[in-house]
Amino acid sequence: MKAFELAQYGYDGLRLAERPQPSPGPGQLLLRMRAAALNYRDLSVLRGEYASLPLPVIMGSDGVGEVVAVGAGVTKFALGDRVLLLYITNWIDGAPPEENMRRLGGPLDGTFAEYVVIQEDGAVHAPAHLSDVEAATLPVAGLTAWHMLFAHGHLRLGESVVVQGTGGVSLFALMLARAAGAEVIVTSGSDEKLARAKALGAHHVINYRTTPDWDVRVREITRGRGADHVIDVAGGEELTRSIKAARIAGTVYVTGFVAGLNANFALLPAITKRVRLQAVSGGHRASLEALARSTELHREIRPVIDRTFHFTELREALRHLDKGGHFGKVALSFEGTHS
Amino acid sequence: MKAFELAQYGYDGLRLAERPQPSPGPGQLLLRMRAAALNYRDLSVLRGEYASLPLPVIMGSDGVGEVVAVGAGVTKFALGDRVLLLYITNWIDGAPPEENMRRLGGPLDGTFAEYVVIQEDGAVHAPAHLSDVEAATLPVAGLTAWHMLFAHGHLRLGESVVVQGTGGVSLFALMLARAAGAEVIVTSGSDEKLARAKALGAHHVINYRTTPDWDVRVREITRGRGADHVIDVAGGEELTRSIKAARIAGTVYVTGFVAGLNANFALLPAITKRVRLQAVSGGHRASLEALARSTELHREIRPVIDRTFHFTELREALRHLDKGGHFGKVALSFEGTHS
Amino acid sequence: MKAFELAQYGYDGLRLAERPQPSPGPGQLLLRMRAAALNYRDLSVLRGEYASLPLPVIMGSDGVGEVVAVGAGVTKFALGDRVLLLYITNWIDGAPPEENMRRLGGPLDGTFAEYVVIQEDGAVHAPAHLSDVEAATLPVAGLTAWHMLFAHGHLRLGESVVVQGTGGVSLFALMLARAAGAEVIVTSGSDEKLARAKALGAHHVINYRTTPDWDVRVREITRGRGADHVIDVAGGEELTRSIKAARIAGTVYVTGFVAGLNANFALLPAITKRVRLQAVSGGHRASLEALARSTELHREIRPVIDRTFHFTELREALRHLDKGGHFGKVALSFEGTHS
Amino acid sequence: MKAFELAQYGYDGLRLAERPQPSPGPGQLLLRMRAAALNYRDLSVLRGEYASLPLPVIMGSDGVGEVVAVGAGVTKFALGDRVLLLYITNWIDGAPPEENMRRLGGPLDGTFAEYVVIQEDGAVHAPAHLSDVEAATLPVAGLTAWHMLFAHGHLRLGESVVVQGTGGVSLFALMLARAAGAEVIVTSGSDEKLARAKALGAHHVINYRTTPDWDVRVREITRGRGADHVIDVAGGEELTRSIKAARIAGTVYVTGFVAGLNANFALLPAITKRVRLQAVSGGHRASLEALARSTELHREIRPVIDRTFHFTELREALRHLDKGGHFGKVALSFEGTHS
Repeated sequence: MKAFELAQYGYDGLRLAERPQPSPGPGQLLLRMRAAALNYRDLSVLRGEYASLPLPVIMGSDGVGEVVAVGAGVTKFALGDRVLLLYITNWIDGAPPEENMRRLGGPLDGTFAEYVVIQEDGAVHAPAHLSDVEAATLPVAGLTAWHMLFAHGHLRLGESVVVQGTGGVSLFALMLARAAGAEVIVTSGSDEKLARAKALGAHHVINYRTTPDWDVRVREITRGRGADHVIDVAGGEELTRSIKAARIAGTVYVTGFVAGLNANFALLPAITKRVRLQAVSGGHRASLEALARSTELHREIRPVIDRTFHFTELREALRHLDKGGHFGKVALSFEGTHS
Repeated sequence: MKAFELAQYGYDGLRLAERPQPSPGPGQLLLRMRAAALNYRDLSVLRGEYASLPLPVIMGSDGVGEVVAVGAGVTKFALGDRVLLLYITNWIDGAPPEENMRRLGGPLDGTFAEYVVIQEDGAVHAPAHLSDVEAATLPVAGLTAWHMLFAHGHLRLGESVVVQGTGGVSLFALMLARAAGAEVIVTSGSDEKLARAKALGAHHVINYRTTPDWDVRVREITRGRGADHVIDVAGGEELTRSIKAARIAGTVYVTGFVAGLNANFALLPAITKRVRLQAVSGGHRASLEALARSTELHREIRPVIDRTFHFTELREALRHLDKGGHFGKVALSFEGTHS
Repeated sequence: MKAFELAQYGYDGLRLAERPQPSPGPGQLLLRMRAAALNYRDLSVLRGEYASLPLPVIMGSDGVGEVVAVGAGVTKFALGDRVLLLYITNWIDGAPPEENMRRLGGPLDGTFAEYVVIQEDGAVHAPAHLSDVEAATLPVAGLTAWHMLFAHGHLRLGESVVVQGTGGVSLFALMLARAAGAEVIVTSGSDEKLARAKALGAHHVINYRTTPDWDVRVREITRGRGADHVIDVAGGEELTRSIKAARIAGTVYVTGFVAGLNANFALLPAITKRVRLQAVSGGHRASLEALARSTELHREIRPVIDRTFHFTELREALRHLDKGGHFGKVALSFEGTHS
Repeated sequence: MKAFELAQYGYDGLRLAERPQPSPGPGQLLLRMRAAALNYRDLSVLRGEYASLPLPVIMGSDGVGEVVAVGAGVTKFALGDRVLLLYITNWIDGAPPEENMRRLGGPLDGTFAEYVVIQEDGAVHAPAHLSDVEAATLPVAGLTAWHMLFAHGHLRLGESVVVQGTGGVSLFALMLARAAGAEVIVTSGSDEKLARAKALGAHHVINYRTTPDWDVRVREITRGRGADHVIDVAGGEELTRSIKAARIAGTVYVTGFVAGLNANFALLPAITKRVRLQAVSGGHRASLEALARSTELHREIRPVIDRTFHFTELREALRHLDKGGHFGKVALSFEGTHS
């Protein structure tokens, strides 16, 4: 089978290789991949920012595939089922595994391959109404947004949520928070993107270029309280602003590093407000199942696809993501791939 | 001023008395009552089911009033503000007060009076878009539903909620759960009420007369999982059915005694499912504030008024409630009362 | 290998059978059993109180074994390791599995066998300082007590815990709560057992025969507050007393049916107190790991063994448990068994 | 009466003034102060680091006093009772008040005064077995440690806690965690202080001068897991080390600024570990009551007094605190003060 493996760090180290097709052991599924989605994590893996991955490794952490073979003892899935692959395949519920977190796309071989074998316990039925490409965006971006707001945040009806930016996690957070009855505030540097965010359900939008003290504006919108939840995808020096935008005892989710690999914040506002900073990445199977059920009940939670590339165009897709400027997810389709 | 006080248990013990108008001390508000709502608690108080209240006591636990005088040091409210009275006036947040729970309508004098004095800490701004009578239903029925689903239940997007009946708490629970993106199932013995519940947003309805094993139907609707939340207003022998309708590790809220003062349940299904039975009554100020904010953001959460009586018709109003058959809340208006 | 299988319900249906020795698949361990412990669940299985088990089934839900073979891909365990078997082998963390809860001792073959195969994910390292028989009591009785107090109860320093009786779960709860800095009250009908409970660390003891209104005594001991946690192993009519012994917003754990398969309680005290009734049975791997670590740090948490039988004496052991009157756990040793 | 008021920022702005003795209104207590304790907050107030306090203000946030008069309607306290003053007098339970947080020692007049008036709701009975000076340290340092570990941290039996330093909060955290059955690791730059920490119950100690990569040592001690709880009193650049010392999904409490008013951390380890950074300061009345009860049950939780000054020596006491080097709390006694 064909798979994109990273043999050494950098775009040049990425090659479409021929690998033996895997076969499922007891309790395992063989999936023919139908779509995958790209994440910033893929860029970090490519750049070698993650500590010591064993190379070569098949890249890709997101995806949806069709069950084409099952191992002994499989009970939850049958041939033909369309399933989501859990990114951390052994994170079932509760806290992440302390030992041996099994991550697709490094250190484990990932989803940018024609076939993938996965433990039955690491798979979830894909919602039937979503296209392959849409479904492929749930296991990382969708799940991160869900886990943040519901597993960590216990988001409640009527609470306010500040969403920074319009990347994959941010747009999922916007749609999920809206469906859950929250008041949603989106920030971006582009009026055009803000207009699209409004169309997706944002109650308020703030252009941080024209309103650099956007935290003051958040406090105005929330009648002085500050926001219950602030999703910080930037890090860097802006974290203090996120803290100032939060209410007393509010939560700031730390989930990206658009503004650099370090974060910096003023202690006095953090302590006076008793703020919680919660670092987030991905989530467990219970959250992914709940997300899948929610998209079925709420058809307006529709993954936003910025652009779909063919599987063989992975390099172009990564460069498109790397460039920034996208609105929603960059995806890969395997249509017409399998011989 | 005029006030309905209970001098001895029973309808005959209820009289419209003349009382001296109270005046606010430091940190207190004097409210001219504008509307009040009736609760089953009022019937229990009337019947003497509550242990040893000091009689006579002014009845009434729900209500909205206008600030007509303030004591020294009041900072959150001004003359003319329309405020909700917190039923347990010193339950601010977290757990209920362990000592000296101050309850309106027994042992404290309550809201069926032309004027009421309340601590500033026990008042909440009434949402401006609600009528007096609508607002008056928030502090008991609305708050109980809110506190149950959000403070105890951490209700999440896409979860399922079974609501028994169409009384005040039940209809609030229906509307709140719907606005929070839950899947709502309502049970009732009347097809006409079920039709009205559907119009208010219920996804599914079950007539327990024609479908006595409604728990089986709940499991079908939830594709075998059982419901995440079951609101039991009955008690009695039906509690086992509520437990069977719940999912593994689900919650059954115990909040009423329509079917008797005892509840009975089979241990094996409860233990096998690891069910939680949470007894609920009222809630804290933080919940009432959150409820008020939510009604402002979600105008579709509109308190359902079965019938409004004039303040002086309290006896008739209580008898109407006592008879059953209402859909939503029975309310009192003070319009034209104050001389 | 030899194994006790239940061919039909009742003592006569229990036989020491010859079974083929299992072999471990990928990710699995083969364990040579060293000790097992008995639980009330075994009696219920024997009596056919559990719905529709597939017979014959090897009984036994508790135990400790030595790793004598490993399947491909096993990373956490090596030959010679002594491991605990998780009773619900796929309950890793968070909520119990909704589908397909894999339980040892029915429906899955259990631990009353010379050899058992288990998924690596369903095993936990046994604390080195405990004997085989002591370690064998952790996966059911120890885990139930732990999960109740810490996963459900968030037991805090200085809180009060009422423990009914002196069976396996109760004595674990006593020792765990004591080590966690709680104030422990034990009830029993036997002064001799109460004296032993005191020696194990109980601060207060109540003989419910001489003090039938033991809930009043609990409120006295707790200076009128009531207990933060009440462990109810009885069910039946006594549940109201447990509720009355609890503080406002306290928790009553429902975990046994000594007094019958139904429970009955008065609604008014439950609702007035906003009590939580939490049904409990077993727990997840994260709790079992935490329990194992805690016994290493706190050597005073030493499982109490009432009596040890040899594996081949299972019938006698079950009858001993059935008779009641034990203090702590009834255990099985496999010493000298394996040929 | 005499009171230390701050008329302008800096030591020179501090003066022992004559103020009219306050008198209690309804629901209030008049306390004759018996002891108070100093906190870093007092130094921040003195330096003007807090935004815009209304000067002059009576300093002091900690303390214990005797009830010498009560206003109308007081029910929980009587003349002669010895009570603790809650630092944020209207933080009763749950989240901190969003509006109008009433803090003693700025903006409200504080405890460095012969007499103080406080709302009944903001007072807690002092444990009888503690001396005045010991009791005076509970409302700030003791409460911060308690609230952190139990209200935020849900500290469980057998968990590991890293405590930085040997100041007031740190020593309380050490003793509370030890009493709750945790494994305690203390860091300090002084071997002598570490020896004293061991005597108070620390299981492990690390001198960060001789072991600058103390996070590596913490992971060794915790057999590779990292600590469940890390109490960071430093901020600054060391926060990354605290994060690295924590386990996956662990908590770092941010509660001091010994190393500067900013904190800085690397995002990748924080996100990979899904760490929670929880800012903490003080706590609510429910926590203070629980702390007081716990000191009664666990007499080994004895506040550590570094040095006691007489009330009139406040300046010397503040300079002593400012210098650093203390072990435990710096306190003030009012003995012989009241004329």
